[in-house]
Amino acid sequence: MNIYDIAGMAGVSIATVSRVVNGSDKVSEKTRQKVLDVIHDAGYTPNVFAQGLGLNTMHTIGILVPNIADVYMAECVNFLEDQLHTYGYDCLLSCSGFDIEQKEAHVQLLLSKRIDALILVGSTYAGSGENSHETDYIREAASQVPVFLINGAVSGENIYCTVCDDRKAVYDVAMSLIRRGRKRILFLTDSHSYSAQQKMAGYEQALTESGLPVLGELRLHTKNRAHYVRDMLLQYTNLKYDAVIATDDGMAVGALKFAKIRGMNVPLDLEIVGYNNSSLSICCDPELTSVDNRTEQVCHDTVDRMLAVLRGERGIDAQLIIPCHLIKRSTTDF
Amino acid sequence: MNIYDIAGMAGVSIATVSRVVNGSDKVSEKTRQKVLDVIHDAGYTPNVFAQGLGLNTMHTIGILVPNIADVYMAECVNFLEDQLHTYGYDCLLSCSGFDIEQKEAHVQLLLSKRIDALILVGSTYAGSGENSHETDYIREAASQVPVFLINGAVSGENIYCTVCDDRKAVYDVAMSLIRRGRKRILFLTDSHSYSAQQKMAGYEQALTESGLPVLGELRLHTKNRAHYVRDMLLQYTNLKYDAVIATDDGMAVGALKFAKIRGMNVPLDLEIVGYNNSSLSICCDPELTSVDNRTEQVCHDTVDRMLAVLRGERGIDAQLIIPCHLIKRSTTDF
Repeated sequence: MNIYDIAGMAGVSIATVSRVVNGSDKVSEKTRQKVLDVIHDAGYTPNVFAQGLGLNTMHTIGILVPNIADVYMAECVNFLEDQLHTYGYDCLLSCSGFDIEQKEAHVQLLLSKRIDALILVGSTYAGSGENSHETDYIREAASQVPVFLINGAVSGENIYCTVCDDRKAVYDVAMSLIRRGRKRILFLTDSHSYSAQQKMAGYEQALTESGLPVLGELRLHTKNRAHYVRDMLLQYTNLKYDAVIATDDGMAVGALKFAKIRGMNVPLDLEIVGYNNSSLSICCDPELTSVDNRTEQVCHDTVDRMLAVLRGERGIDAQLIIPCHLIKRSTTDF
Repeated sequence: MNIYDIAGMAGVSIATVSRVVNGSDKVSEKTRQKVLDVIHDAGYTPNVFAQGLGLNTMHTIGILVPNIADVYMAECVNFLEDQLHTYGYDCLLSCSGFDIEQKEAHVQLLLSKRIDALILVGSTYAGSGENSHETDYIREAASQVPVFLINGAVSGENIYCTVCDDRKAVYDVAMSLIRRGRKRILFLTDSHSYSAQQKMAGYEQALTESGLPVLGELRLHTKNRAHYVRDMLLQYTNLKYDAVIATDDGMAVGALKFAKIRGMNVPLDLEIVGYNNSSLSICCDPELTSVDNRTEQVCHDTVDRMLAVLRGERGIDAQLIIPCHLIKRSTTDF
């Protein structure tokens, strides 16, 4: 029984139901009484009904992201909202930041708003590994509603994960570069998240399998800002490399700006690969080869499985891995 | 005015006042109405009054955006969340799309979640003008909680707007171009929103004041995608212009790509100005001169006034206009 049911049975709009239970005085006494009668007949007190506006399904999904200003996450949320809306679900979003206590508090906030399921967007929610204490709050939330992780892997009952295969994507890119003679591949990252670790692992695996050394000096931790990366690379005058793999397009654009100032030919002297296939990748010049981590597909598969879980179906895959696509543009010779 | 005053004037106990503002059903309709009348006569909405008493506050703010994948809106939400969090408020976000019925439904959704105030981000919520029926749902929401619009102007009780001065920003840019001899300024926009109208008005005002004709062929409606704009301009082989003002950086980058293909020197042959000062503006080459519409300041001033309203302060400005800043980079001769 939810607001839509009450509205239908009382023959009024959901706005009117909302007004009545919120105590608005802009409803006629007759209409107000009709709505209250339906709520009473359904076995609720209007006050309790008003607290959560729904006691069983609310057709509302909670979505939590660490940082909505991140282009990748904002796109995820947009795809999720779009698709959930198609199936008649509303969404409530919240932004938690990256701090563990805030993540927990925001999960509680969303749970307190009577959601049918919870979606956590971004590998930060998976902590630094599969079974650490950092993810206990997720297992606890999953005892109340099904929890879906996007781009993070956590195991537990009632938890479903959809990840894109970042490890293999970076491995494949690095192997392509090595096959054509690149020997010193700079790896740029701005994160220590699960996803960043997977990318790093793919990079190291390709080097190792190819008999190349894994050099600390070629794995740089930086900020995801083009000018910051450009200036950092300009300072490292003794560092030599013939290719760059960045874990986000913003850093790759920085490498491109560095190459231009140094008069290097891209891709002849330096090949550059970005990540996320964002709008940045087509705004720079030359346009950026970038790994498409299939945001839309990941969101699509998440919502599909969520609907199945909410319908009570059994045997839903707890973990789904989506392969990335490499989008070839002008900063590589692929 | 406190709960004792209200109780005294209504001739009821303070417990009864508390029950009324908390929406309890343990009050007769007659008593409820008497208390609400006293609160209204004192100049409060029941919700704000309740918060002033420390009753009924959820410390939760509802935020509605049309499209969270829009970089400008995602940044707004991020600034709002950050600042509200500092003051101990949680946020609930929802995405409404641009359809009027969906906007109404999502406002109702957020109101039903017991929010203390509602923030609407983006000029789409202001409809096509100040007082049209398209904005009745905002005035209705404002009878329940204070409503704050970001970058949209709607008048009504309990409604507070913060807008950046888009009209003057575009006027100033166009005047700068005209002063240095530019005579045919292409105006690119992807929207018919209030904000887009303001920008267009500034453009036309500058032309008119300078004795230049306002030509329909130089006002192009397009999509906010760089490649789309590039290809469109490549097709308009007979259209001549010596400057471009775009209402978003994405379109300005498209004009830049067009100029490169045509072998035009930017800014010598063609000056280009973008809007929103987004990450795109520094990723392209040359980097883009762009209007900074002061997202952070707009959000900051919105939250400041919201806190004042929720504290029960009177005389808060219903409308606040923030001047834009022009960020000069390499696509203009300014």
